[in-house]
Amino acid sequence: MSFRAALKTCAAEVDAHLIAQIRTHDPIPVVEAMAYAVAGGKGLRGYLVMESARIHGVDPNRALWSAAAIEAIHAYSLVHDDMPCMDDDDLRRGHPTVHIKWNETTAVLTGDALQSLGFELVTDPRCHENAQVRAELALTLARASGARGMVLGQALDIAAESAASQLTLEEITALQAGKTGALISWSAQAGAIMGQAETAPLSAYADALGLAFQIADDILDVEGDAEVAGKRLQKDADAGKATFVSLLGLEPARARAAELVDEAISALSVYGDSADELRAAARFVISRDT
Amino acid sequence: MSFRAALKTCAAEVDAHLIAQIRTHDPIPVVEAMAYAVAGGKGLRGYLVMESARIHGVDPNRALWSAAAIEAIHAYSLVHDDMPCMDDDDLRRGHPTVHIKWNETTAVLTGDALQSLGFELVTDPRCHENAQVRAELALTLARASGARGMVLGQALDIAAESAASQLTLEEITALQAGKTGALISWSAQAGAIMGQAETAPLSAYADALGLAFQIADDILDVEGDAEVAGKRLQKDADAGKATFVSLLGLEPARARAAELVDEAISALSVYGDSADELRAAARFVISRDT
Repeated sequence: MSFRAALKTCAAEVDAHLIAQIRTHDPIPVVEAMAYAVAGGKGLRGYLVMESARIHGVDPNRALWSAAAIEAIHAYSLVHDDMPCMDDDDLRRGHPTVHIKWNETTAVLTGDALQSLGFELVTDPRCHENAQVRAELALTLARASGARGMVLGQALDIAAESAASQLTLEEITALQAGKTGALISWSAQAGAIMGQAETAPLSAYADALGLAFQIADDILDVEGDAEVAGKRLQKDADAGKATFVSLLGLEPARARAAELVDEAISALSVYGDSADELRAAARFVISRDT
Repeated sequence: MSFRAALKTCAAEVDAHLIAQIRTHDPIPVVEAMAYAVAGGKGLRGYLVMESARIHGVDPNRALWSAAAIEAIHAYSLVHDDMPCMDDDDLRRGHPTVHIKWNETTAVLTGDALQSLGFELVTDPRCHENAQVRAELALTLARASGARGMVLGQALDIAAESAASQLTLEEITALQAGKTGALISWSAQAGAIMGQAETAPLSAYADALGLAFQIADDILDVEGDAEVAGKRLQKDADAGKATFVSLLGLEPARARAAELVDEAISALSVYGDSADELRAAARFVISRDT
């Protein structure tokens, strides 16, 4: 099976599990919007959870809970990030964003409830039989999500838009380490946490992967097809924001991303052949068109 | 010491602990706004945590983590609830709301980061030495916060504003059980969870207390002094919303709240004299002016 097909199959399973959990709530509009917001993503974060879990011999039926959790947290961040006071996007994954399809009130509450759900899923005893692991998953997920992780990155990103001078390469790297890196890092390490094993190799893998992912995103923003991507493109150039592409140039950015993918792949050597899917995931992040 | 003085002392300690934890983040505006948003509340939820913990012999230095967590979650809900697309309030605790003092972007991110912080605090090993307890605190907190708890109540409240007919007493009771009841219930039970004891008496106490609290809020909305309360009043009457006061009448609402306080107090009988502070808290909720 090609990597894309494997990712799609995995994403469908994680989506189904997450939506089933969302459906355990009363069917109010916010709950409808929660199910809508989580559907149809690439599912890369959930895939990283499932694969890092598989390497460590974790029961996939349990790992699904952590995979669903990170997709819930990722979806919450997108719902809030698309709001008019944030990035102001009308389109996400080829569909109207939550505040367009419903309204801003629903978008705020949908994101809020998805965040709570992420923590509910990792602390559910069905996620892991060992409470030490559940507490560790929740603690690391909270750190990755909050003001020393994803929210820090988002705040730096928004501050950059109104800053007098453009960000340096070092500043953009720090920004992205929070904005996209923190959740990707958690996803890759989740399997080791569930397997009660060393997280360092997966942490190194994820650091390189996350940065490659963001450089690829900047390249996609410049040369992607909005219809294929399912979201508005050329946003950063329109906003006059510094990106890896504007700072490095298109070809050097591509070369840097490829170098980071090699770094990510090297970090997996301790796992031998069992990590081939994670290697494929690393190659995927710089070849995707969405 | 009077109950009000005890509450104030406790709130100051919980605030100080929470703000110290917030200050461990980089000092970006969102982090400033987090510290601003948590300061100066009544601290009733944190007090319920500390007192229910004390009854169960829990080390107060550890209980502080759970108390700070619930105040972080409560503050997040206020920051988002005050936004223009939600309740649209300019004033909170006598100060400009976060989206007025900063902007809406900061308000979204501040609320989001405070929610993450709540889960970070209860899963920190310093909160409790037993991981089973930390995982249970996080799981119950997630349920209380999300779409079967507080967010459900908020969504029902907002739906009521645009509904063709006014809510019935039963519907308002259900709405409030989510909107304010769920966090109050978690607060009162947290001490029993930390003490690994039966939660049922505190759950019964909190159910009655939460409803009394909301009836008192409706009474305060009608007859309170906005300057003392530090927030806009007469909002519900202006919006033509059904409240316990509009449905029951002022005096019957007052009588019902008093009855609920008696119920709450009765539920504490198993704890003997050690629960006197929780009894005083129950009496306080119907006598407060903020």
